[in-house]
Formats: sequence, structure tokens, C-alpha cells
Amino acid sequence: MDCIYKDENAVYYEVGFSCDNELLLCLGSEKFFITDARYTIEAQEHVKNAAVIEARDLYKAAREILRKSTCKKLFYDPNEFSCAQLESLRKLPLQLTPKPNLSWQKRIIKSEEEIALIQKSAQLNALAFDAFAKTLQKSEGKKEKFLHWEAKTVLTHHGEYDLSFDPIVAINENAAKPHALPSDKALHRGDLILFDAGIKYKRYCSDRTRTSYYDENITFEKDQKFSNPKIQKAYDIVRKAQEKAISAARIGMRAKDLDKIAREIIDSSEFKGYFVHSLGHGVGLDIHEMPFINARNEQILEDGMVFTIEPGIYIPGEFGIRIEDMVVLRNGRAEVL
Amino acid sequence: MDCIYKDENAVYYEVGFSCDNELLLCLGSEKFFITDARYTIEAQEHVKNAAVIEARDLYKAAREILRKSTCKKLFYDPNEFSCAQLESLRKLPLQLTPKPNLSWQKRIIKSEEEIALIQKSAQLNALAFDAFAKTLQKSEGKKEKFLHWEAKTVLTHHGEYDLSFDPIVAINENAAKPHALPSDKALHRGDLILFDAGIKYKRYCSDRTRTSYYDENITFEKDQKFSNPKIQKAYDIVRKAQEKAISAARIGMRAKDLDKIAREIIDSSEFKGYFVHSLGHGVGLDIHEMPFINARNEQILEDGMVFTIEPGIYIPGEFGIRIEDMVVLRNGRAEVL
Repeated sequence: MDCIYKDENAVYYEVGFSCDNELLLCLGSEKFFITDARYTIEAQEHVKNAAVIEARDLYKAAREILRKSTCKKLFYDPNEFSCAQLESLRKLPLQLTPKPNLSWQKRIIKSEEEIALIQKSAQLNALAFDAFAKTLQKSEGKKEKFLHWEAKTVLTHHGEYDLSFDPIVAINENAAKPHALPSDKALHRGDLILFDAGIKYKRYCSDRTRTSYYDENITFEKDQKFSNPKIQKAYDIVRKAQEKAISAARIGMRAKDLDKIAREIIDSSEFKGYFVHSLGHGVGLDIHEMPFINARNEQILEDGMVFTIEPGIYIPGEFGIRIEDMVVLRNGRAEVL
Repeated sequence: MDCIYKDENAVYYEVGFSCDNELLLCLGSEKFFITDARYTIEAQEHVKNAAVIEARDLYKAAREILRKSTCKKLFYDPNEFSCAQLESLRKLPLQLTPKPNLSWQKRIIKSEEEIALIQKSAQLNALAFDAFAKTLQKSEGKKEKFLHWEAKTVLTHHGEYDLSFDPIVAINENAAKPHALPSDKALHRGDLILFDAGIKYKRYCSDRTRTSYYDENITFEKDQKFSNPKIQKAYDIVRKAQEKAISAARIGMRAKDLDKIAREIIDSSEFKGYFVHSLGHGVGLDIHEMPFINARNEQILEDGMVFTIEPGIYIPGEFGIRIEDMVVLRNGRAEVL
């Protein structure tokens, strides 16, 4: 199958290198990595199994290669290319064929090497959670914005690692907002704090969420005691839903059936309807990739898939709770990474 | 002119609000801000001069509005929409017409309010340069990666402001790389350090570069004394090119003529050919927008345009120098912001 990629992670997956201006043409057994003069030297050093082509106009270079090739049908991901970019390929005597999620489909089953990198990413991330809890122990009265920056400093090991997404540090009712931006709200003893964060290790992402009771002994362990009984009740239900989904996950199951297991626990409680998002998402080179674990996805789960399990309960104006871990399916079951 | 936008800054410019999932339809004097349930409340509060429409599928909602409208020709920026997104609008009985840089064209002349925000952004950024110089005075032996994070902490005021781009902190030969990523290289007395950074103030970007001699008294003032005579010579030429371009800028001039003024100073020296990028770029809601000040752009400069002037000399394997300020054209001439 001949295809063209431009997404950095899609390209990296194919040839082990990417930069911020490139095209990758895969034509039969031949691959062409097209980039501009700024990246040629690095590309020649690191690109595997592809010819490196230097060009000012990457699309023009791609057209020239395609014209000389025998390619009759070229697949591309329509989410990856802008209209303007694709337009420049339309003049060629070949069939440009959209294939959504082209690269994600190929990446849905992780190799053992990939799982090892994701595991290392998850472990470093968990250590950062512990370190951030220690920081929080001495941070009473600090604002979300300040804590958000502290979290990033800890997560990146002072700039050593990249983040896999902008972390969420949200207090009390702010934790109920699905896309909470850090505010001027200050942290006080007795508050609830939700922390959702991940880093990248050798480009592979991690993702984790904990919700904790705040005092000077805060930890991000799953055992939590909240002073507010309603919060404690919701917390225990989220935890039960998460642990149940982890222990019940099996290969051969459809993604929607796994979502259902967690959702039923929440929806059979007084918090019915307050788990407003899907149960999880695949994680790899992208922080959100296939398989998506939601109420509609018929995808059959298989060994080698890596995804999050992250149920939550969100009461607008009051609080939000989410507990999230990453799992890999191995020997038919889910192992927490 | 009826048009559709989805870029956050394009939408913000039209209605004073944006989020990360939205479409804006401008049909005659009517505007429709389409977003999902997560953002409805905030949108209703902040969106100006547009009806807020809540939808699960934004494109479907847009199609419904368009079908009921009298719109016969809808303009869009082909750089803004992916093929998949546009495909969903093709079924309509109207002419979908690409217009590259639709929003940038409208935003090329800044209002006095916008200039005031950009000026404030530039002032806060300049203060951060001073604060970072003070940090550097005590940072001998630290690695680029560490300094890069320190720079971000200072620039954002510990998370208070957003960055307009990932800053560049590059030592000696690393400053010659056009897209230097922070490395493990450590900073030592006698080194050259290049610092390119900007923040956002109320969404408006700033951008500035200084190149300095490193010792315990480092500043980011333009007066610099390097111990290496070749570096000093190159520095003095870059500074002359930058100051000359600022003083010579006039309305009515073409962008390429301004680029030429700086380029000729460098190309008439022993460093001919080592100024490898364009002289500058517009700055506003986007960090790179129109007008682009390069050797090919015929754009006539006008009062109210805001752009950078940033000549440089890059000797691969040795050093890189760049000096950058932002200017606004006012009363026919360039004023440094």
C-alpha cells in the first residue's frame, strides 16, 4: 500500500526520526524522507530505511518522486493534511485515496520495545506524582497557577523531559470542569485536589490522574479520606469502577463493553449521569490514539494494546473526581503500567 | 463576504472569545459561534456579536445553518481546514471558495488597542529578559536544558503568562542552528549565549532576541564585548544591520526593500551569505503572521503594521548571532515596542 505521511509521530513510527517540516512517501518497499536544508544532516544520521531528500518545496519534491514512480493509488489520512497541502498533489496522474487514521491503525498493537518505553514513561511519571505530593505538602495557600507551574517543573525534571500534555491541577469545583485552566484559586487544608499529568520518555507518552484530600500529609495514593461524606462516597464509587474495569478487561471484549462495566457501577449509584466522558483512550506516541474506550466503539481488544482506564464523577459547582491508570493487555488481561 | 473560520486566533479576532473546539460562520451581518456543551456557558458570557450554538457535531450544525441561509459563496482559508473537515461542507448547494490567509489579511493593520496590548506584552517580555540575565549571572556551569526551564519560569512569571513560543537558549555553536533544541551543553565564562523569547499578554504575542557575552555580569543590553574578535565583528555588523533597518523603515516601502537594507550590510561584509533567514515577520495574535519581511514579499508597508526586525549571522560549528526587536509603523516610521 503506497502512502504519504506528514504527522511527526506517524513519520517517526515509520523511520525512527522526525522534525517539524517533512513528508514521508512510502512507495512499495521504497521510502523517501523529504525535508528542508535545516534538517538534512540530522535526518541523514537518524532516518532508517528511507532515502533523505532535501527540498525547499516538499510537495514539489514529492510530486517529482511520484511522477517517476509506478504508483497508481496513494493513501493519505484526511485528518493529517490541510486542503491547501492536498491540492498540490491533486495534479498527479494517480488516485489520491483518503484513509482515516492510517497511522493509528498500524500503531494500535504495541511491540514489546514500545511497551517497555511506555512503561518507563509511566514509572517516571508516577515518581513525579510522588515528588509533586511532597511539594504540595508545603504549598498551603498557593494558587492553582503557581502549583501548575510547580507541577510542570517536577514532571519535566526541570526541563529534562517533555510533557505529554499540559497538566491539570484543579481544586474543588474547578475539578468538575472538563477542561479546567489553572486559576487564581488558592489551595487550603480540607480541599480536594485533582492532578492529571503525563510525560514523554523517548517520545512515548504517559498519562495518570489522582484525586486527593489536601492537608500537610497529602499523597497521591489511592487510599484517600475526605472530610465531606458526599465526596468520599463519590470517590469510593469511582475507585470501584476503575478497579473493576481493570480486573475485568479481557482480550476479545469490545471496547464499548469495557466502558459499560465501569459506567454501570457509577450509573447504578446516586451519581448516575455524572460520568460524562469515555472510559479511556489509547496511549503511545500520541497521548490520545486508538483504541478509544467509549460507549460506541466496537473495536475488539487485543494483546499489546495500551490504553487508559479513567472513570470520573463531576458535580458542577461542587467537585470532580477522576482516577486514571494506564494498562497494557498481556496474556489476555490488563496489567497496570 | 460570507466566511467560515476555525482557527482560535481568527475566531477570537472576530468575536472576542475562542476555545479549543469551535466554528465561526459569518453570513452577512450575522455571526454564529458553534461549540460543544463544555464551552457553551463561557461562550455565552464572552462571545460578542454572534449567536452561540451548542452542537455535538459542529460541522453538521454549520451545514444546517448554511442550508437555511441565502449564502451562495462561502470563503475559507485552505490552510486552516483539513481535507476531512472541508469534505463535510462540500455537500451544500453553495460555492466553497478558498482564500488563503483570510484572517491574517484582515489583521495586518493593528488598531490602537491592539498596539497597546502588544506593547505591554513586549514590555513584560523585556523585563523578563532582565530578570533572566540576573538568573544567568549565578548560573555558570548549568546546562542549556536547565537554563531553558529557568527561562520559561521567569518568562511566564511562574505560570502567570503564556509563552508565545518555546524560547531558545543556545550557547556558542548551538546558536548557529536555526532550530536549536536545548542540549546538555553547559554554560561557561567567555561563552556566547543567544536568547530568543516571547510571552503573551491578553493573547497578544511578543518576540525578542539578544546575543550576549557570558560572565558573572551578563546583561541583555545591546552593548556587548566578546573576547573573540571574529564574534565581535559579526556582532557589530548584525547590530548595524538591525539599527539601520529600524531607522530606514518607512510606510510606502515594500517589505522586500526593507529586508534588502539589512541584508546588504551583512552581504557587503566578510559574512556574506551567512544571514540565512528573512529579516522579520508580523506579530499579533499569532507569533508569525503578516507582514512577512523577506527578500520576495512585495507587500507595501503601512502605518499600524507590527513586525520584528531580526537580522543574524550564523557560522555553522562556531557561533550564531541574532538581534531582534518588535516595531510598529506610526507616522510613517518604525517605533521600537
